[in-house]
Amino acid sequence: MPTKVKCLASLEDGKRDLRPDDVEIKILYCGICHTDIHHVRGNWGADGYGYPVVPGHEIIGKVFRVGTEVSKFMVGDSVGVGCMVDSCQTCPTCNNDREQYCDFTTFTYGSLDRRDGSRNYGGYSEMIIVTEKFVLSIPENLDLAAAAPLLCAGITTYSPLRRWGVHPGSKVGVVGLGGLGHMALKLAKAMGADVTLFSRSQGKAEDANRLGADQFLISSDPEAMKAAAGQFDLIIDTVPYKHDVNPYVMALVPEGSLVLVGYVGPLEPPVNVAPVVLRSQNLAGSLIGGIKETQEMLDFCGHHKIMSDIKVIDAQELNSAYESLLKGDVMQRFVIDITTL
Amino acid sequence: MPTKVKCLASLEDGKRDLRPDDVEIKILYCGICHTDIHHVRGNWGADGYGYPVVPGHEIIGKVFRVGTEVSKFMVGDSVGVGCMVDSCQTCPTCNNDREQYCDFTTFTYGSLDRRDGSRNYGGYSEMIIVTEKFVLSIPENLDLAAAAPLLCAGITTYSPLRRWGVHPGSKVGVVGLGGLGHMALKLAKAMGADVTLFSRSQGKAEDANRLGADQFLISSDPEAMKAAAGQFDLIIDTVPYKHDVNPYVMALVPEGSLVLVGYVGPLEPPVNVAPVVLRSQNLAGSLIGGIKETQEMLDFCGHHKIMSDIKVIDAQELNSAYESLLKGDVMQRFVIDITTL
Repeated sequence: MPTKVKCLASLEDGKRDLRPDDVEIKILYCGICHTDIHHVRGNWGADGYGYPVVPGHEIIGKVFRVGTEVSKFMVGDSVGVGCMVDSCQTCPTCNNDREQYCDFTTFTYGSLDRRDGSRNYGGYSEMIIVTEKFVLSIPENLDLAAAAPLLCAGITTYSPLRRWGVHPGSKVGVVGLGGLGHMALKLAKAMGADVTLFSRSQGKAEDANRLGADQFLISSDPEAMKAAAGQFDLIIDTVPYKHDVNPYVMALVPEGSLVLVGYVGPLEPPVNVAPVVLRSQNLAGSLIGGIKETQEMLDFCGHHKIMSDIKVIDAQELNSAYESLLKGDVMQRFVIDITTL
Repeated sequence: MPTKVKCLASLEDGKRDLRPDDVEIKILYCGICHTDIHHVRGNWGADGYGYPVVPGHEIIGKVFRVGTEVSKFMVGDSVGVGCMVDSCQTCPTCNNDREQYCDFTTFTYGSLDRRDGSRNYGGYSEMIIVTEKFVLSIPENLDLAAAAPLLCAGITTYSPLRRWGVHPGSKVGVVGLGGLGHMALKLAKAMGADVTLFSRSQGKAEDANRLGADQFLISSDPEAMKAAAGQFDLIIDTVPYKHDVNPYVMALVPEGSLVLVGYVGPLEPPVNVAPVVLRSQNLAGSLIGGIKETQEMLDFCGHHKIMSDIKVIDAQELNSAYESLLKGDVMQRFVIDITTL
């Protein structure tokens, strides 16, 4: 099945006129997220996501033009756009800096603009116009291509690490070493945690070690998993497909938390809640993060010089990158060099 | 099958010599917890719980004698004993006031004393000897019989309400109106929450209303459950048998928590984690509370004059009380008047 990606090479396609609070961004790089593939292939149904779809929500670029009321950004600034480009900005969740749960969140592509109802398009494109509030500053010391995946993979893993208070000495587990997993590992290490990487594949051991993992465990080895019981304050599970979470529940300390950031679907085999109740544990999920927290994450990454491990590709390599991602054994994030469009 | 309850009528049965840090308590009342029935009937296997078992971990009495090093209690004080009577008192969880997760917690009955290895017996008895640290002060203004269930049902529901920060304005759901549920309702109301009671049975509506519930919902009514979607900061689920938790997950706000305190077993039908991830929710469990928190709960109940709704029974009514509990439609807690032994 061909991927149905449309690239917007013309500055005029899919763009609205500049509003007073808009920032127009000349895109330089855009990361490829698994979500893009789901949208392009219609995996989640056509509901609200009719074609054409222009994916891409790990966007890095330079400010090209600003609206008359924009105060935070100037032409030439290095900026980023993540998974959201607007929300109602008046409801309690928005006021609480949780725009991702707003009933009117406008996602970066495949959504309708809440003001004029136009369909919006993502970052596989030369230009994008975004409301100032949803534009993020990129710290100067970060490589712009390698910063792109922070906008989705970075915030998706940073948010639960912060929410569950990871600090020096915390024992953190990370399940899976793909785009999300390798960011979780880097971020948890920068927060001072002792980090264990769980993987099905011994092949990931070297990468885990290079990225600073303190331990590496083969998740399919029942003996190794048994030995890990009762050890982890927090486990971030980045696995995007159905899998047994019971061994990870068993690996938690009392009051510990297992946070799913990859898989969405029924938990099968069923979770046995006996250990969850008897040791007051949490089985939780986490969705990206709000705009304020995303900026905090970017500043944290600037401070600790954390970026994603990436492979920069030309626009014409898009389909082969999708195929590699679908094979599921890629740690780095693919980032499209948009100047090759 | 007959219940195999043994009552200790003699002061000399099942008692150790008084140690310097021991408090000897003349028991006046003991609440009946569902756990007692599980132990008596061997539902959880004989592992570590061989007969004879003397159940009872909602114990209220008066201090009868104190060891030479006891400083917190005097003869005649009103005291309580809950689910634990000892722990290692040196490990990190004990030092963190979470004795319930200690690897060497001595539960109140069916456990072995960690110092002399003797089997211990619970509160369906005239006397009990307990290490000072695990003896609790009962506020003077509480009725002693009605305070007994606070030692298990009270702390089991108080702890998650506190851990999840219930405050005035919180929207709290309580699933089930039995011994645990009616305490959760009273405690959440005292913390200022707006409380909704979920029940399978319309018959509980009047009780829920009398106890201060702000709303009452029939959990088996799909329309009512649909209307409750996205509303609750915290839901305390006290149902002790297998049931579908998905409608309660759907009833949570973003970042809301569903806390199981009754059922221990596989979650079937499986939980769909899509809403859990997409709205960053928690599915958690909770086990009683530490000794410090239990005293805090008792003081809170003293301050707010919160007690359990009870039916005091004679020792000889024990077996019929068990039968009533097993029928599952009893809201009040049965409390044994130990003077009738």
